[in-house]
Amino acid sequence: MKPRISVFVATSLDGYIARPDGGVEWLDVPPPSPTEDYGFQGFFETVDTLVMGRHTFEKVLSFDPWPYARKPVIVLSRRVVEIPAHLQHCVTASSENPAELASRLWVEGRRHLYVDGGITIQGFLAAGLVDELTITRIPILLGGGVPLFGALLQDVPLTLQFSRSFANGLVQTRYRVSLR
Amino acid sequence: MKPRISVFVATSLDGYIARPDGGVEWLDVPPPSPTEDYGFQGFFETVDTLVMGRHTFEKVLSFDPWPYARKPVIVLSRRVVEIPAHLQHCVTASSENPAELASRLWVEGRRHLYVDGGITIQGFLAAGLVDELTITRIPILLGGGVPLFGALLQDVPLTLQFSRSFANGLVQTRYRVSLR
Repeated sequence: MKPRISVFVATSLDGYIARPDGGVEWLDVPPPSPTEDYGFQGFFETVDTLVMGRHTFEKVLSFDPWPYARKPVIVLSRRVVEIPAHLQHCVTASSENPAELASRLWVEGRRHLYVDGGITIQGFLAAGLVDELTITRIPILLGGGVPLFGALLQDVPLTLQFSRSFANGLVQTRYRVSLR
Repeated sequence: MKPRISVFVATSLDGYIARPDGGVEWLDVPPPSPTEDYGFQGFFETVDTLVMGRHTFEKVLSFDPWPYARKPVIVLSRRVVEIPAHLQHCVTASSENPAELASRLWVEGRRHLYVDGGITIQGFLAAGLVDELTITRIPILLGGGVPLFGALLQDVPLTLQFSRSFANGLVQTRYRVSLR
């Protein structure tokens, strides 16, 4: 048994989540209305735990304020992760692999994980653990950067849940991973 | 001056137009209705010339019958391209680069090119020559293959023209390349 596992991520049309240097300023497209959040808050309220890689954690740390309130965050890394004192009540580190982590979190009562960051998403997808992907496409080609997707041992068939576009040109699609 | 230049292509959700061995059997998703062609015929009637690379040409040759009727086709290749006798009335080869080809075709009176094939599309995009991209996403992750997009010298900002989804899970988006 494992928790439900979801991805909610923005990419360029050519599939990058960041520039080669990690830059994400191209994500700052003026929203179609001041309160439009592309469904993020509604999604975020359904998850009980975030899982991300060290690179993503360090990028999020550079934002101020910390955007995830008191929601538990697990940082996956084979190295030691420095967690600032003011976040130690909600952030922990782990060197488990995706399947080990998912099993442990299920036992601990977690029921919906939000998995973020390129390497982490790729690891959970390759392990066949992802249930749902919500992808918001920014209308730009970057030509290079940190890719959302990576190698797989086999095809991952998907079922479209919905697709919607916004007046600023963003296109959001949600897929479920189909049973095999 | 150059003709209008359009791309009309299907990709996996992870951005591949073919498997590593060129396989495209995953494109054969049952259509939502027997006559649904995702707008291809309507698009095709607006173009006066096809431009494709040698790999794509050889793939299309393996289909029977030849799908492009008598529409002029130009095969880009630095090598000699063997054109079967029954296609020599409509298929020619060229070793020009994208800008040279586009200029020549404009002078010859061509007004709308349909550019196909990964390397060819990437070459026209990198040269800043593409006006419009229509991308139909198949709901599958392949994990590897022939990528639609490649490296660019600079960002390519896009403007969404439309997005629509089909009952079988395909999502089609059309973008114009924005003026810079």
